[in-house]
Amino acid sequence: MKSLMIGVALVLGCGAVSVARAQSWSPPADGQRCPSKWGAGDQRGSGNHMKAESVLKAARLIKTGEVFEISHVLEAGMPISATRRFDVHTKRTVMNPQSNRRGSNEELVVSEIGQVGTQFDAFPHQTIGDSLYNCFKLEEIQTRTGFTKLGVENVGSLVGRGVLIDVAALKGVDMLPDTYEITVADLQQALQRQSLALQPGDAVLIHTGWSKLWGKDNARYMKTCPGIGVAAAEWLAKQDPMLVGADNWPVEVAPNPDPQISLPVHQIMLAINGIHLLENLKLGDLAGKRVYEFAFVMQPLKLKGGTGSTVAPIAIR
Amino acid sequence: MKSLMIGVALVLGCGAVSVARAQSWSPPADGQRCPSKWGAGDQRGSGNHMKAESVLKAARLIKTGEVFEISHVLEAGMPISATRRFDVHTKRTVMNPQSNRRGSNEELVVSEIGQVGTQFDAFPHQTIGDSLYNCFKLEEIQTRTGFTKLGVENVGSLVGRGVLIDVAALKGVDMLPDTYEITVADLQQALQRQSLALQPGDAVLIHTGWSKLWGKDNARYMKTCPGIGVAAAEWLAKQDPMLVGADNWPVEVAPNPDPQISLPVHQIMLAINGIHLLENLKLGDLAGKRVYEFAFVMQPLKLKGGTGSTVAPIAIR
Amino acid sequence: MKSLMIGVALVLGCGAVSVARAQSWSPPADGQRCPSKWGAGDQRGSGNHMKAESVLKAARLIKTGEVFEISHVLEAGMPISATRRFDVHTKRTVMNPQSNRRGSNEELVVSEIGQVGTQFDAFPHQTIGDSLYNCFKLEEIQTRTGFTKLGVENVGSLVGRGVLIDVAALKGVDMLPDTYEITVADLQQALQRQSLALQPGDAVLIHTGWSKLWGKDNARYMKTCPGIGVAAAEWLAKQDPMLVGADNWPVEVAPNPDPQISLPVHQIMLAINGIHLLENLKLGDLAGKRVYEFAFVMQPLKLKGGTGSTVAPIAIR
Amino acid sequence: MKSLMIGVALVLGCGAVSVARAQSWSPPADGQRCPSKWGAGDQRGSGNHMKAESVLKAARLIKTGEVFEISHVLEAGMPISATRRFDVHTKRTVMNPQSNRRGSNEELVVSEIGQVGTQFDAFPHQTIGDSLYNCFKLEEIQTRTGFTKLGVENVGSLVGRGVLIDVAALKGVDMLPDTYEITVADLQQALQRQSLALQPGDAVLIHTGWSKLWGKDNARYMKTCPGIGVAAAEWLAKQDPMLVGADNWPVEVAPNPDPQISLPVHQIMLAINGIHLLENLKLGDLAGKRVYEFAFVMQPLKLKGGTGSTVAPIAIR
Repeated sequence: MKSLMIGVALVLGCGAVSVARAQSWSPPADGQRCPSKWGAGDQRGSGNHMKAESVLKAARLIKTGEVFEISHVLEAGMPISATRRFDVHTKRTVMNPQSNRRGSNEELVVSEIGQVGTQFDAFPHQTIGDSLYNCFKLEEIQTRTGFTKLGVENVGSLVGRGVLIDVAALKGVDMLPDTYEITVADLQQALQRQSLALQPGDAVLIHTGWSKLWGKDNARYMKTCPGIGVAAAEWLAKQDPMLVGADNWPVEVAPNPDPQISLPVHQIMLAINGIHLLENLKLGDLAGKRVYEFAFVMQPLKLKGGTGSTVAPIAIR
Repeated sequence: MKSLMIGVALVLGCGAVSVARAQSWSPPADGQRCPSKWGAGDQRGSGNHMKAESVLKAARLIKTGEVFEISHVLEAGMPISATRRFDVHTKRTVMNPQSNRRGSNEELVVSEIGQVGTQFDAFPHQTIGDSLYNCFKLEEIQTRTGFTKLGVENVGSLVGRGVLIDVAALKGVDMLPDTYEITVADLQQALQRQSLALQPGDAVLIHTGWSKLWGKDNARYMKTCPGIGVAAAEWLAKQDPMLVGADNWPVEVAPNPDPQISLPVHQIMLAINGIHLLENLKLGDLAGKRVYEFAFVMQPLKLKGGTGSTVAPIAIR
Repeated sequence: MKSLMIGVALVLGCGAVSVARAQSWSPPADGQRCPSKWGAGDQRGSGNHMKAESVLKAARLIKTGEVFEISHVLEAGMPISATRRFDVHTKRTVMNPQSNRRGSNEELVVSEIGQVGTQFDAFPHQTIGDSLYNCFKLEEIQTRTGFTKLGVENVGSLVGRGVLIDVAALKGVDMLPDTYEITVADLQQALQRQSLALQPGDAVLIHTGWSKLWGKDNARYMKTCPGIGVAAAEWLAKQDPMLVGADNWPVEVAPNPDPQISLPVHQIMLAINGIHLLENLKLGDLAGKRVYEFAFVMQPLKLKGGTGSTVAPIAIR
Repeated sequence: MKSLMIGVALVLGCGAVSVARAQSWSPPADGQRCPSKWGAGDQRGSGNHMKAESVLKAARLIKTGEVFEISHVLEAGMPISATRRFDVHTKRTVMNPQSNRRGSNEELVVSEIGQVGTQFDAFPHQTIGDSLYNCFKLEEIQTRTGFTKLGVENVGSLVGRGVLIDVAALKGVDMLPDTYEITVADLQQALQRQSLALQPGDAVLIHTGWSKLWGKDNARYMKTCPGIGVAAAEWLAKQDPMLVGADNWPVEVAPNPDPQISLPVHQIMLAINGIHLLENLKLGDLAGKRVYEFAFVMQPLKLKGGTGSTVAPIAIR
């Protein structure tokens, strides 16, 4: 199918643009992308931006101490992939026999806890074939109980300058349309409108408005979403961020406008460039108050060998 | 045994102090402890200290940007209560059919995730009979899938001044002895030695050295531990902290020297005073570098109706 | 509403029947129903029918050796209560390092395994207030990990004469109407039509045809169902069966025609009379071939302290 | 490698014993073992013996109706592989709001339910490299939620002649020694002592006495065990049984006397010959009463795509 389309393009004398359209994006070969810019064997990728300077830069952005909780509550009614669960079973109260009548409660949670709610993607989450970030190979690092390399426990807290890119506001809408692909120009214009420039090490959060559907129309929330595509992802990767997040479920547009490829931004960010993703953010308050630059703080759980972590990040100004 | 001791005390004409020692501590009646000082119906307790001022105070303590991860890795080999689990099942890789060969990984976690690893206790965790913090009643707020009041999702990120009280250093040991009860004098002398005074809203972390056993002698780690007792807990509660944490599993001494009562500090802090607890901290680096005052940042997961959350807090100086 | 209707009935001089209709069924007091006819402290109830004679009676009914599997497959697409799960996670293949290249597979199942699919109800499953079969009390036998009395592990295999009562065939339909309450007369006429009489110790299986919806219209299958009501249940209990089963989810009609009561047949059978229930049977083959009398064999799992067991019973003729 | 070693052995004139020691058993190539004797594409293997005749043969063995429960209770204190769980969480009682005060109980079970307790092995459980029974390939039939072929739901109830081979009694011991390999001669002599001959389609159960350790010394129970080795397994496979079971955890001797191979009998039975295994049986009562021939009945759960099932089989005489 692919080669047929290329053939037709050539016969018809279509130009480079048409050919590019006809061809699907495909991930680079291992040799083209490895070792990563952070060095052979590196497991931290964009997490390497987390350093004392990054913390100091964030601290300097704290002016009023106002905190914005930018994660959703983890609860039964939240949007969730059909293959994932978030089940909480409150155990029966245990009454201890001693005289102070101390009762204890706790809950069993059964969940893909690395990949539910507001969630942070670590590098084992996505592959290109059998190859992951920095060309670690599945068969070398997979076990039944986690990955021996690249696990989310390597990340640690991420603290740095946070920047909100409000594409919805740029477009003058509350919420971008279903399946809208955010372009490079959108990002650049939104930043210009906000009088901000990205810096290496930023936590870049994109406001699409999509989370207005959270808990209200979960079916629509999960079916598609507006978000960045291949071009915007490649541009963002060049800005060298600490992570890229959005208020939708995959950061990127879904489904991809090219039906032949599946969530390519996941590969571009996680596998190819070693840049973490942060999904299902709750950005309405930041956008509503036009808080575009802030201290970003996030603490992924140290799940040994984990593919990610549900998180509860904050923005502070 | 109890009545016998009281009888002897009376016969010998012992004063009130002796009688108090002979008698077990017992929790106050509901009428004596409710409403809490934070007001009837309050669900946040010591979490009310989390305000813009608390954040600004913390930010001012950030001088070098050095971050200390004070949580343990969540893994199979960690100490854990016999009635709890931390099981990670890495699901089989799904290879998506599209041309970009995107493979997806995720893990199912089965765990009392609110009560494993470095863990933060919310108020539904502990009762006095059928009564909880601010006299919410078990039968009114319990469900199969969480608590309708007091759940950890109400807490949000906690940012404030953190103070390490190094009792092990005061005593000139790496690790306090098994079942050692930390006294009020210990806390006061340790603070004096560190030239620090507690302030309302502090995140107070107590270094016992016990976490040296973590992952090395889990059986001993869980069997007993040094920690604060009733007297030190009541003194700490009067200092009005944001939370009290330690590098052992229950913050408090275990078992309690009085065999008739079970973990009374849990009731004193959570149920009576509405003060959060933070357990299984990793404080060796802070203590080793004598970092006694710092910015404390912690993000509990927003588990709706949850009794607590495993956490990954940091200290920043 | 209830007392008003009784008042009206008395004023109008209505007879006993009318009053009975106006009043909801209510369970007898403990003193009226305990000890059970099987003796104080008995935990087996109708399972006491399982004896050598019962097995011999069943064996004599085996004429051709033809086996009918009367359970459904346990799978993701089956009807299930909204509060229950049946999740299978096939673990990653482990390849053992030895020279014979032996790979091992196994699956983690997360499920209310006692109460999913074709399922057998043991006595801890249902209460009248805080009282269970033979007046065992909830607070005396409940633990976090099972019941100390009445657990399904006490039951063992049940082998006996099985009788199918085909009410759908009596009515000349494939499937009884939604919410149809099977009457005593229905049962008696169906037996007469089949030239059969019930005997003490029988496994009585009622064919409603409802399982035609299984896996095809799960929402309708679970929303309501035809089945026996209070009167038919009380009549069946007097026949002294080993168990009562049906090809619907609760054996009984749902919802009960009297909106003031919830699944009363569960209390009549399990709590009051100590008769086991067997739900979600697949009886189409038996009914289609008019197999009305057969050897019935069922092996509940020995889940210590369990409320029931998913099962895979058979009928043999 | 194998042929080379044989060549060397012949040249050097080494005896049969030496050659056998030098060479490890290795599984046959796919071409040598497929299609299975039950035909290409067959998924039932020895389960094909389950037919009306098998049932009639079993029924004829029922003389007194006495039932022997030959499975263990599923409970927390049972021996279990370190990588498996059997966790029961009794959910909080739900009290329904209607007037009949009906309370409901149920439990969440988290377990490798196909591979715990007295357990029946289906064919997806074991591989030779990437190849399973009848040369189905892992990559063709595996999914995250079960196997698309060979799943235990295909088996159905197994009813047939059961034969107990009491090797412990032959040896005049209660329990065979740790790591004792049962030989072909042992099986033959034990049968001769019992005046019995195996027939095609038999459920063959081997009594080693090992289950005396069950729940009493679980560590020893799981560490090693007496059982059949390669030679006895190959002899048994030629007898064409419906299944082979034992009162130990892997049916076979463990570890295998040849340290270069891992549980070869699993491959011989499941993958090569398509014969089911039945583990962790409780055979003390049968052996104690010298019940050597009986009706065997077992009902595996119909876990779609499952690798096996915990079971509660019975023997009837």
